[in-house]
Amino acid sequence: MRCVISFITALFAVFVMAAQQYVSPLVEGDSVVLTLLAPTADSVKVCGDWLAAGERAFMEKDDAGVWRYSCRNLPVGLYTYTYCVDGTNIVDPLSPYVVRDVGQLYTYFIVADHGEMPAYSVKNVPHGTVSTRWYWSEKLQKQRRMMVYIPYGYERCDKSYPVLYLLHGMGGDETAWNELGRASIILDNLIYEGKAEPMIVVMPNGNVAQEAAPGSSSRGLVAVNFNEPNTMDGTFESCFDEIISFIDDSYRTIPVASGRAIAGLSMGGYHSLYISANNPNTFKYIGLFSPATKVRGTHQVYNDIADKLIVLRDAFPSLYWIAIGSDDFLYDEVAMFREELARINMPFIYRESNKGHVWSNWRLYLTEFLQMLFR
Amino acid sequence: MRCVISFITALFAVFVMAAQQYVSPLVEGDSVVLTLLAPTADSVKVCGDWLAAGERAFMEKDDAGVWRYSCRNLPVGLYTYTYCVDGTNIVDPLSPYVVRDVGQLYTYFIVADHGEMPAYSVKNVPHGTVSTRWYWSEKLQKQRRMMVYIPYGYERCDKSYPVLYLLHGMGGDETAWNELGRASIILDNLIYEGKAEPMIVVMPNGNVAQEAAPGSSSRGLVAVNFNEPNTMDGTFESCFDEIISFIDDSYRTIPVASGRAIAGLSMGGYHSLYISANNPNTFKYIGLFSPATKVRGTHQVYNDIADKLIVLRDAFPSLYWIAIGSDDFLYDEVAMFREELARINMPFIYRESNKGHVWSNWRLYLTEFLQMLFR
Repeated sequence: MRCVISFITALFAVFVMAAQQYVSPLVEGDSVVLTLLAPTADSVKVCGDWLAAGERAFMEKDDAGVWRYSCRNLPVGLYTYTYCVDGTNIVDPLSPYVVRDVGQLYTYFIVADHGEMPAYSVKNVPHGTVSTRWYWSEKLQKQRRMMVYIPYGYERCDKSYPVLYLLHGMGGDETAWNELGRASIILDNLIYEGKAEPMIVVMPNGNVAQEAAPGSSSRGLVAVNFNEPNTMDGTFESCFDEIISFIDDSYRTIPVASGRAIAGLSMGGYHSLYISANNPNTFKYIGLFSPATKVRGTHQVYNDIADKLIVLRDAFPSLYWIAIGSDDFLYDEVAMFREELARINMPFIYRESNKGHVWSNWRLYLTEFLQMLFR
Repeated sequence: MRCVISFITALFAVFVMAAQQYVSPLVEGDSVVLTLLAPTADSVKVCGDWLAAGERAFMEKDDAGVWRYSCRNLPVGLYTYTYCVDGTNIVDPLSPYVVRDVGQLYTYFIVADHGEMPAYSVKNVPHGTVSTRWYWSEKLQKQRRMMVYIPYGYERCDKSYPVLYLLHGMGGDETAWNELGRASIILDNLIYEGKAEPMIVVMPNGNVAQEAAPGSSSRGLVAVNFNEPNTMDGTFESCFDEIISFIDDSYRTIPVASGRAIAGLSMGGYHSLYISANNPNTFKYIGLFSPATKVRGTHQVYNDIADKLIVLRDAFPSLYWIAIGSDDFLYDEVAMFREELARINMPFIYRESNKGHVWSNWRLYLTEFLQMLFR
């Protein structure tokens, strides 16, 4: 809202813009049409996550300099894309709907049909509250931020709720599960439909060097690193008790193992594995989504892991759930970990999906995992 | 975090990317350099809010197809820009730091110096909690979302706090004041420095047709309209009591006029004007930032406004604060409103800044206004 002459003029300008501009992405049923005005470009490609990994789709230019791409028969889902214009990746200039994954923005759209609205579409159901909460880490000597989801109804009752700790992957931060993973939307929908128990979901920041996500910390607007220091060296795992204490002190929780779950994707799966193994009586529900499993640091939390898993086994977790895509680069590593679990007779459920190390899998895994908790 | 072969490969890829890529925006002291790879483009302009209204700055291309623009002597502040590449506006592909204003994304950066960190830079001070809260509007028969800031310490005490209701402008929504206006950051900093009282800040959605901001409602990912229906026709003003009741029921507030302030920008200033005039004993602090003032709808809340302002005058508000930029398109309208206030001997404070109807003014006004409240 800037530089307008009057509200009337502005209104008129909006109509003129609407008439001049193209709509992109244009989603109709199971098809999408993408449109970009780039009259001087030599080559424009679509980099979309509905394409095969690494595949780019060429757009075609008309005489007016408008590039188009269309695709049909897309399965119900959320899709992200960028354009590659003569070597430079940009988001769609005609859409305000972007998400940030590590340091890159992506435009997104949703393919739905009336019979099958995905669990991550916002529906007209009662909504929980999502908060950015800061806590003081005595061990790390810094303020740190987390996102906390509390279910609809929490504020109007005095009931206690179970807690899921939900951990992001490398390059992510405390916003990743809610923004890219659409966690609060999935929870609202599943809880409303009676498919998941009402629960608190805590999404901490797994990068111990960070206070908070890029742009929300006193570091300022720095470049976003895929690789923060001290991510998989045992520091986060050994500080996790502070987060649990903060949550049990701050919310009406069920502060015993049967009221706690922990799950994470990739690096967050690794964190979940080692935090639960080192604290066998803290969580009854454990979820490893496309996890790294092999030890990547030198720290006491990684010592004697087979023995720790035996102690965890004997504490009888209600659920030890491992999910991975058949194309995931961590597939073989997870297969070895499954063999290790089998060797010690640790019960677990294994879920294999297609595709690889991608958010569409993690939204799917979260949707499935939530329905198995606390019941 | 997608399609990587291994963590080591990913790490290596990041280094390679860093070596290949340019950094943009590159902010050093009071200068900024913008860089864009666009080898086939004929013309690239910068549309930045540090330039004069409507002005575009031409970028220059080198032999490698890289366009550059630099600017020195920028005052401390937050700046937004897009590139116009042969007629298409894009955000800077090299930065993940974007904000959405109505339906358009802008890249942003901050110019600071060590002696003068702007009030809207995230600092290492205690942080409040920001939540997305949903309430049921009986009058509008829909769920609606608001953002609520509660100050650091609220959760650890049983004190009651005053409340500022902070309203967005046309085209905005409940996220605008926190994202574009950086309200929670300004509050954290001013409260820590003792320049503002700890307070709750409620940022509702002023578009009665909307449940929530684009992308967060059950409408889906629709085009973002500057002009929602029923924005300035009295509906929002006449439903505002529901928001106050919800907040007084949900938080430890000081539920009397001396514990309440209302302020807004542009359309939100208009809403603040008419809500406070129709409820003369509800708010002791009123702020109109670049407000529309002339009646734009037919509704009882707009009737007999001079009489209502006299009743408000006789209720002795502690602060009636009007601010506008000298280049604002609403300048004359506000001047007439000031004359009207003078005619009825209504005390008010008038603050004139330079520039026009822009967020840099609204961040400034909020920073000043907060320091005058509840003390």
